[in-house]
Formats: sequence, C-alpha cells, structure tokens
Amino acid sequence: MTHRDLTILVIDENAIRASIIEAGLHDAGHSRVSVVHDVHGVGRVIERLQPDVIVIDLENPNRDLLESMFQLSRSVKRPIAMFVDRSDSSMIEAAIDAGVSAYVVDGLRQERVKPILDMAISRFNAFSRMERELADARSELADRKVIDRAKGILMKSRGISEEEAYKLLRTTAMNQNRKIAEIAQSLVLAAGLLEDF
Amino acid sequence: MTHRDLTILVIDENAIRASIIEAGLHDAGHSRVSVVHDVHGVGRVIERLQPDVIVIDLENPNRDLLESMFQLSRSVKRPIAMFVDRSDSSMIEAAIDAGVSAYVVDGLRQERVKPILDMAISRFNAFSRMERELADARSELADRKVIDRAKGILMKSRGISEEEAYKLLRTTAMNQNRKIAEIAQSLVLAAGLLEDF
Repeated sequence: MTHRDLTILVIDENAIRASIIEAGLHDAGHSRVSVVHDVHGVGRVIERLQPDVIVIDLENPNRDLLESMFQLSRSVKRPIAMFVDRSDSSMIEAAIDAGVSAYVVDGLRQERVKPILDMAISRFNAFSRMERELADARSELADRKVIDRAKGILMKSRGISEEEAYKLLRTTAMNQNRKIAEIAQSLVLAAGLLEDF
Repeated sequence: MTHRDLTILVIDENAIRASIIEAGLHDAGHSRVSVVHDVHGVGRVIERLQPDVIVIDLENPNRDLLESMFQLSRSVKRPIAMFVDRSDSSMIEAAIDAGVSAYVVDGLRQERVKPILDMAISRFNAFSRMERELADARSELADRKVIDRAKGILMKSRGISEEEAYKLLRTTAMNQNRKIAEIAQSLVLAAGLLEDF
C-alpha cells in the first residue's frame, strides 16, 4: 500500500483548523479522508472506518481531553499525529508514553501536514517493529523456561534423561498439533495441581 | 538533572538560523549552549564537550551531508533534534532509522525550540528504555541457551543428572567469581575444540 491509498481520520472540533489539515492532506494526494468534529464517540467511528492513520487536532486542550486522547492512542495501535497549540514538558512526555507517533506543538500549517504524516507513519512502524522484537524475545524466553520446567518434571517422575523428556514433549506436541511450549505449560499446571492431592 | 542544566550543542552552518535556535534555548532557560558553524570535525567537538543533547539545523542539505549527520546520530547515542527545510518521505524514514529523536521539516521558529527539545529528550529516553529491555531479554535468552548446552555436555561426559550439571556450573562460577553463563560459554567453546582432537 502506498501512502496515498491510506484511509485517514481527522478529529478536530475546530472547522477552520480541520480544513487546513484537509487541504494539507489533499495537497499530499490523499483522497480517503474523513473528518469528525466531535471528539466524543470517536471510538465508534474508528471501529467503523478502520483508518490507517489518525490525525487529531486539539488546539488548546484541557487535561481531561488530552488524557482521553492519550487513552485512545494507547488502544488503537495505529499511527497518530497530534497537533496542540501549547504543551508543557510533562504533557509531551505523556504523549510519548501513550505512543503518539507525532506530537506537534504550535506547528500546524498546511505545508507541514504531509511531512508530519510521513513522520508519524515511519515512527509508528519503527516502534512497532521494536515492540514486536521485544515481544518475540520475551515469549521465546518464557517458552524456554516452561519447557525446562516440564522437562524437569518428566525426568523426575519418569526417571528419564533430559533428551528423552524433550522427545516426549515434542512427540506429544506433534500428535496433538500444538506447540511444545503449550504442552509444557499444561504439564506444569497439572503437576502443580496433582502435588496438592 | 533538570532539563535546564543540560549541555547543548548546536550545529548550524547558517549564523542567522543558529541565533534563532540560541534565542529559543535561552528563552527555555538553557545557558550551557555551544554553537559550531562548521559541520566538519564535529565529532571531535562532541568528544570534548560531551553534550547531553545535540541540535542540528541543516536548512537545505544535500544527500551526502544528511547521510553523514544520520551516521553521527547512530554513533552518538544522545537525543538529537534535527531541523531541515525540506524532506521527502524516504529521508524522513532514514532519519528515524538513524535514531533522530525529533526530525522537524520546515518548522524552525524560536518559540518551538523548547517543545521540540523536550520532545527529543522524551522520545530518546522512551526509545533507549525499550532498547535496553530488548537487549536484556535477548541476553537472558542467549545465557539460557548456552547454559543449556553446557549442562548437556556435562551430563553426557560425566554421566550426571541435569541438576548436578547445573550445580557444578554454579559452584565453578562462584569459585571463579564469574557468571554462570560465562563458565558455560567457556565449556561449550572448549568442548568444541576438544572434539576436533
């Protein structure tokens, strides 16, 4: 998908500022742009529209509105570019913690919409890639730990070698068409229950 | 350290634009600001100054200059805010890949220097935290793998149980005041060498 094919949702309570953003998106060749002027119930709009990118312009938001937009950012798992007119450093930090891909303070101009959108998408992709790598590494580690525990249980209860224990887990996994870590997890769980008998 | 105590290096070949950045930093209460007007040999300046943050303004850079600044960004491991006047989406992506914490296209204004600096620092910290978590998870996984291999070697060569093999590695590590993974690594290496005898 090229950037031009993106479905973009613009959230902006201010119609004039929304039209600046729309014009900037239009200049950049984007035609699949929806605008909502009411921030309330925006969750349902996102659900229905499934936008690839969300642009939020908040002008001069109070803490509550900002916090609810950060909450949205955490839940939608999409690139978000957010424009505000003012922000102190604690709000900037909160925006980044919430995963806002581009947080632009006092910098809304028609010509800048395209580079900021590109930036938000690139930043989001880079971050997602790293998040995925972290999740993979952690899940591999967790798998290894539970497989080790399961092997230990089998070695002890059946008096078999580590190699035999691993083979047993692997064969069971293949027969049941499940992952070795899942079988190991079941075994560890069952062993914990049986001990209390 | 509060943000105000930061040592900041500004790299800008254009004296007028450098003075805009300086004024913005001054407004934000920063007094430890150094400016260099020549991008060449900037590595030595960084070496000597050890700045906490680097602000680079490139106006309208050619590809070579931009690439060398991205190279710098990869090596310095510090928050970098970069201002350019124009940029296409491939350059934006390259900037993010190079770890530029804030890449601002056509958005240099005195009042915006402070929020952009705050942004660069927050973004850098968030990214570094995640990088560290990823490195930790990967190193724990690597440790576990090498310890497993070492245990296997000991179990086979000495005919001992997994538990005994682990105890042996742990005791050796304690006696030598080294990590279990280091002992395991040495053992795996040695076993590989001895096999070829």
